[in-house]
Amino acid sequence: MRLRNKPGATDELLQHPTIVIQHADTMKGKWHDEVFGNRNPIHIEVGTGKGQFLTGMSQLHKDINYVGVEKYDSVIITALERIQEVGVPNFKLLNEDVTNITSYFAEDEVDRVYINFTDPWPKNRHEKRRLTHEGFLRMYEQIMKKNGEIHFKTDNQALFEYSLHSFSKYGMILNNVSLDLHNSDIEGNVMTEYEEKFSRKGMRIYRCEAQFR
Amino acid sequence: MRLRNKPGATDELLQHPTIVIQHADTMKGKWHDEVFGNRNPIHIEVGTGKGQFLTGMSQLHKDINYVGVEKYDSVIITALERIQEVGVPNFKLLNEDVTNITSYFAEDEVDRVYINFTDPWPKNRHEKRRLTHEGFLRMYEQIMKKNGEIHFKTDNQALFEYSLHSFSKYGMILNNVSLDLHNSDIEGNVMTEYEEKFSRKGMRIYRCEAQFR
Repeated sequence: MRLRNKPGATDELLQHPTIVIQHADTMKGKWHDEVFGNRNPIHIEVGTGKGQFLTGMSQLHKDINYVGVEKYDSVIITALERIQEVGVPNFKLLNEDVTNITSYFAEDEVDRVYINFTDPWPKNRHEKRRLTHEGFLRMYEQIMKKNGEIHFKTDNQALFEYSLHSFSKYGMILNNVSLDLHNSDIEGNVMTEYEEKFSRKGMRIYRCEAQFR
Repeated sequence: MRLRNKPGATDELLQHPTIVIQHADTMKGKWHDEVFGNRNPIHIEVGTGKGQFLTGMSQLHKDINYVGVEKYDSVIITALERIQEVGVPNFKLLNEDVTNITSYFAEDEVDRVYINFTDPWPKNRHEKRRLTHEGFLRMYEQIMKKNGEIHFKTDNQALFEYSLHSFSKYGMILNNVSLDLHNSDIEGNVMTEYEEKFSRKGMRIYRCEAQFR
C-alpha cells in the first residue's frame, strides 16, 4: 500500500466513533451487543486498506457484521468515507495494528477472517510479518469459533506458496483452492482495489479458504 | 497416457525378471535384501509410464533405489528398454496396479512416493481414482516411513487444486510449493516426458512436497 499522508485524517477518524470504534480493548467480548446490537456472525478483514472489499461485502450480506482492521490513518479514512457514502450499518472500522488483534476480540467472537492482497514481505527475515505466518494464525485461532475459516486472496505467487505451507503446517484444511480465480467458476467474488488493478493487467489471482480444525 | 497396443510387450516384460519384478507380493518386506541387495532408501513412482523421470533420477542418485509402478504393458515396456540402454541397477519396475500397492510393499519399506502428471480424472464421480485421493494417501502412508514425503508434479491446475485440499485434509504438511516450477529457483528438477512437452508449450507446471505427520 503506497501511503500518502492525509492531513486531518486522524481527527476525522475520531469524529465518527460509531463507525471507527475507539478504545477497542474495552469492546473485547462485546462486539455483538455493544457495537452491532445483534447476534449475526462477525467477519473481519485484516489490513482492510481503503475498504472497497468490505463495502461490497457488507452491501451484499446484510446479515453479517464486518469489521475492517487497518492501522494506517491515511488509507482507513477512505474506508470511512465509503461507509458514510453507502450507509452500511454492518461495517465497522478498527484503526489498530493486527498484531494486537487478541486485545480487541474475545475467544470465539469472530466467525471468519479475510486476508486480501496483504504485504508479501518477501525477505526471509521478515517472514514473521506476513499475515499468514504461524504467529498470526495462532492469534486468529484464538479469537475465532471452532472450524473457523480464513479466506485469503493474493496476486503474489510467492506469498501464496508460502501461505499454503504455513496453513497446512498449522494443521489447517485448504478448501476451494483457486490458482486462477478470475478464470474459475467460483461465484460471488467481490473484488478489492488491488484485485481490479492486477486482474485487468491479466495477472493471476490466487485464492483459498483455510479452515482451522 | 495414450495407449497403443504393443505386440509382444507382455512376453518381453516377463523375460527380464531382474528388472521387471515378478510375483511382487512375495517381495513384500524384502525389497532391500532380495531385490536391491542394499539398505539404500526406496523411492517409488506411481504411474511411472515410460520411465523417463526415474531413468534420469536413478542416474543422478545412485544411492537411492527406485521402483516404477505402472500397470500398462504397452508403456512400461519403454521403461524396460531405457533401463537396459543406460544400465541402472538401482531402477526396477513393477507391472502392477497402484490400487494394490500395499500388497507389494511392507510397512515402513518405502521412503518417498513420486506422483508425476497423473491422470486428473476430472469428473467428480471419478474422484476416488485420482492418485492423490485420500484412499491412496492412506495406502502410501501404510507403506512409507514416518514423515515420508510425496513429491507431486502436474500441469493440471484443477488436479493440483484438488490435491492441495486432499493433502491438507489428510493432515499433511505442504513444503516447497511451486506454482510455476520452470520459473522458480528449485534446483535438480528431472523432467518427465509430459513435462517437457507441456513446458515447451509455455504451460505452468505445479509442484509440491506433501509430508505425512
